[in-house]
Amino acid sequence: MTNTVKTTWKGKMQFESTNEGGNLMIDANKEVGGEGKGHRPKALMLTALAGCSGLDVVSLLKKMRAEVKDFNIDIEANLTDEHPKYYNKVQMTFNFYGKDFKKDKIEKAVRLSEERYCGVMEMFRQFAEVKTSIQYFEE
Amino acid sequence: MTNTVKTTWKGKMQFESTNEGGNLMIDANKEVGGEGKGHRPKALMLTALAGCSGLDVVSLLKKMRAEVKDFNIDIEANLTDEHPKYYNKVQMTFNFYGKDFKKDKIEKAVRLSEERYCGVMEMFRQFAEVKTSIQYFEE
Repeated sequence: MTNTVKTTWKGKMQFESTNEGGNLMIDANKEVGGEGKGHRPKALMLTALAGCSGLDVVSLLKKMRAEVKDFNIDIEANLTDEHPKYYNKVQMTFNFYGKDFKKDKIEKAVRLSEERYCGVMEMFRQFAEVKTSIQYFEE
Repeated sequence: MTNTVKTTWKGKMQFESTNEGGNLMIDANKEVGGEGKGHRPKALMLTALAGCSGLDVVSLLKKMRAEVKDFNIDIEANLTDEHPKYYNKVQMTFNFYGKDFKKDKIEKAVRLSEERYCGVMEMFRQFAEVKTSIQYFEE
């Protein structure tokens, strides 16, 4: 086994989870008895997906000398209605800001993350239909 | 679509991700050019898994009147060697602390989370072999 995480109940609906980058709190929504003082577990999976692919893309753009001024990723995901609820559809939009975009290289970087490097996206593809798109904003 | 998350590049290998429970930072390890000032994306998935199942178990134990004094979850996971790297094996250990455990109910709560309620575990089962076990610590 390569990774370990310990997650400890802190009373009510709160948990503290050890994570390499620092501990983080989990809590449920108020509607289900929580106090909203921590992250929602399922939403963390979407942050993991964006972070994993985002890290690939920024390192590839640097290697390819195709840096942009700003960059963000919007994720929209659909959770199923019945228990156990899982994400069955995910739309990732890569938004690039700047000028004189090297679009060939940017598209290659996103495609390499999708097809080869992003382990979280590979995991998501096992349960969800994952679509990606790219938008450019000239400044 | 039921959920949205925006994740914004903050320079170097850092990203800030909006999440219902507050924003959180993502950063890579130093070995790959990051500064370790945020969470690692893949490790967040393990926190999501523990948090999701942990919330199920505490609410079920409360409903069943089978509360324990303390409770934590250890996750050990194995990441594959080749890109894209994904978790292929996950071992979750539910550790309960207290006395006069209502073991039937505790085991039922864990089983209901596994089989019926925990959406994150359902997603993990699509790419990983997930095993669970229970340990009791009399105090």
